[in-house]
Amino acid sequence: MVKPLWEKKRRGTVTSPLGFYASGVHAGIKKKKKRFDSALIVSRTPCVAAGTFTTNRVKAWPVLHSMKAIQALKHRAILASSGNANCMNGPNGKEAVAECVREAARLLNIGEEEVLAAQTGLIGIPFPVTRFKKAIPALVSRLSEEGGHAAAKGILTTDLSTKEVALSFYLGDKKVTIGAMGKGAGMVHPNMATMLCFITTDVAITKPILRRALRHAVDDTFNQMAIDNDMSTNDMALVLANGEAGNPAIQRVDRDYRTFREALEEVCRIMAYEMVKDGEGVTHVCTLKVSGAKNPTEAEKAARQIANSMLFKTMLAGADPNWGRIAAAIGASGIAFDPLSLNIAFGNAVVVHHGRLRVLNLPKARRILQRKEYTIDVTLGKGRGRAQFVTSDLTTKYVMINASYS
Amino acid sequence: MVKPLWEKKRRGTVTSPLGFYASGVHAGIKKKKKRFDSALIVSRTPCVAAGTFTTNRVKAWPVLHSMKAIQALKHRAILASSGNANCMNGPNGKEAVAECVREAARLLNIGEEEVLAAQTGLIGIPFPVTRFKKAIPALVSRLSEEGGHAAAKGILTTDLSTKEVALSFYLGDKKVTIGAMGKGAGMVHPNMATMLCFITTDVAITKPILRRALRHAVDDTFNQMAIDNDMSTNDMALVLANGEAGNPAIQRVDRDYRTFREALEEVCRIMAYEMVKDGEGVTHVCTLKVSGAKNPTEAEKAARQIANSMLFKTMLAGADPNWGRIAAAIGASGIAFDPLSLNIAFGNAVVVHHGRLRVLNLPKARRILQRKEYTIDVTLGKGRGRAQFVTSDLTTKYVMINASYS
Repeated sequence: MVKPLWEKKRRGTVTSPLGFYASGVHAGIKKKKKRFDSALIVSRTPCVAAGTFTTNRVKAWPVLHSMKAIQALKHRAILASSGNANCMNGPNGKEAVAECVREAARLLNIGEEEVLAAQTGLIGIPFPVTRFKKAIPALVSRLSEEGGHAAAKGILTTDLSTKEVALSFYLGDKKVTIGAMGKGAGMVHPNMATMLCFITTDVAITKPILRRALRHAVDDTFNQMAIDNDMSTNDMALVLANGEAGNPAIQRVDRDYRTFREALEEVCRIMAYEMVKDGEGVTHVCTLKVSGAKNPTEAEKAARQIANSMLFKTMLAGADPNWGRIAAAIGASGIAFDPLSLNIAFGNAVVVHHGRLRVLNLPKARRILQRKEYTIDVTLGKGRGRAQFVTSDLTTKYVMINASYS
Repeated sequence: MVKPLWEKKRRGTVTSPLGFYASGVHAGIKKKKKRFDSALIVSRTPCVAAGTFTTNRVKAWPVLHSMKAIQALKHRAILASSGNANCMNGPNGKEAVAECVREAARLLNIGEEEVLAAQTGLIGIPFPVTRFKKAIPALVSRLSEEGGHAAAKGILTTDLSTKEVALSFYLGDKKVTIGAMGKGAGMVHPNMATMLCFITTDVAITKPILRRALRHAVDDTFNQMAIDNDMSTNDMALVLANGEAGNPAIQRVDRDYRTFREALEEVCRIMAYEMVKDGEGVTHVCTLKVSGAKNPTEAEKAARQIANSMLFKTMLAGADPNWGRIAAAIGASGIAFDPLSLNIAFGNAVVVHHGRLRVLNLPKARRILQRKEYTIDVTLGKGRGRAQFVTSDLTTKYVMINASYS
């Protein structure tokens, strides 16, 4: 298959696809006066939607709302806020979501079931429903085609910058665009964990096929990143597709589907990478590639164990090619492997070849680990199983941020 | 059963039981001139021995040696060193262990199979066998009944202090003593991971019964502590019993067995607690008690997930009763539980009762978290499953130590 020729948009965001409007305002959920803490994304025409949600057994109220609402056939809006997770705060939290969704639906003149909801922030405190509800008219009145960036700001917590992207590509002669915004920072971890990502697209597609494409994209991107080893109660990825691109609707797994899915996956990959890069206290981003495993499951097990190892992550912080920690993590992952066929390369500096240290390459490896972004390749043996994770270093700053969050 | 009246010995150590001698010297494995880096423990009479070993698939050479040697019927000595893990450094590492064990056996005039070996330190570098071998005569000549403390120093790496203890108790009219020394610090984690513990006792016991008691004690102590989420390649716990106490040999699961096992478990518990307390950068030690789970397995799952959560551990560093992180970790553990029956108490400050926050108790909880040592109680529901973990905070100091270890 020819790789789709997609075009990454400068300043692309959720309002890049045709027919999407967005806004963000300060509602007063966050204490700091000017920090945006709420966002709204609306399509002018009905969309099909798909979502993936946290696997944490404790699910925030907006997650429970959206898991149910996503079952409707058509959707129009995503209502989001930051600063308060609206989780484990009793039945009032549930009512808070319902009330705000109702208010947004009323003002937008759409059905309540067409509004998906997402929230992020501190767990276990009452949700300031009155304040948020009061801000919804402002969110609605500020909806615009230029509102993507404001909306992206409205969902941040400890993130240092917004995460936005858009890609365009062609299906036949129709130009299709996918836009996205997200938040990551603390608690980013595999298993559909600990992040919000809202994706908009003007592609015409059926709901089941959209769901299939999203699952695939999420598995290969958001589920393979690691900042710390926790799974949030609030994570979700949502996609709205309004069909305004005018392409013949994608209805099955065909060439158009694959083109779309690859573009969607690229969008998710960019978002995941940006989330890891902006993780709390992160100073180095590592793309970890594991190959040569017996099968993909074993490759993923090893990659996950390495990517989440605190000793590995502190090693990255210190730019220290202490490969023994990688070997120990693989050993701890429980997969079968022969230490004598292990290869480890930091960038292009091969430090371990067939299980033996190449001392002369250590200085080069150290220089590579001093870069902001690099790849570490681990070969386990002769199998064909591969996996890739995006991970980050564990720094003193991470600890400082998280020791004083609430 | 009446709780055994054991007596904790002041300055008790591996040489407290009858007939044990020990020594420690600087062999030159560690660079710093005066730091001890080798240890020898010897019994004047033959012992039965038992051991538990790391479950990491990558095992250091001394682990492989001792796993095999432990199958012999009688043992006399433990030879240990620190500064170099002798792991993943090629077949020379295997030969290094064999050579040093041979030298020790020769000088002690005992069989090679009677010598168990353990090493700890950096992975993946050649073991300085000549230097260590040269130090063995000094280890042998310095063996003494007062040598326990020197030996305890010989196995430390980033530990700040030695870990030693001894308990005495009576079996009938015979006084029995158990002594122990250990090292923990970095990488301490459940699953028989990441620590060395050498236990000596003058009890008379059969080898299978000793093995049974050790497994039980290790499961409830070393396997339930958490400093970071890694499993070392070198961990082991060894016990030597020489029978000099003169009690009727423990041969089955009877009252004497239970008395001995409880004392052994207490020794391991003290050692585990000291290891966590002296973990890298640790400033707070938390005894985490989970109860009310459906069964002990689910209680342990929840406790393990909480105890190893980086967000939980940074929260302890910041003395911040952010109970939402505990709830999120339980949710992430995958066990079934009802958030509405969750209780969380920091010391005696109940912060969550039936899933709802008790705001007024937060200041008290904060004060408790500022202590060096405390208990956190988590009740999940009405089940009878319980588990207990000893865990520590994750501090900026941990990161600094581990970012520059090699």
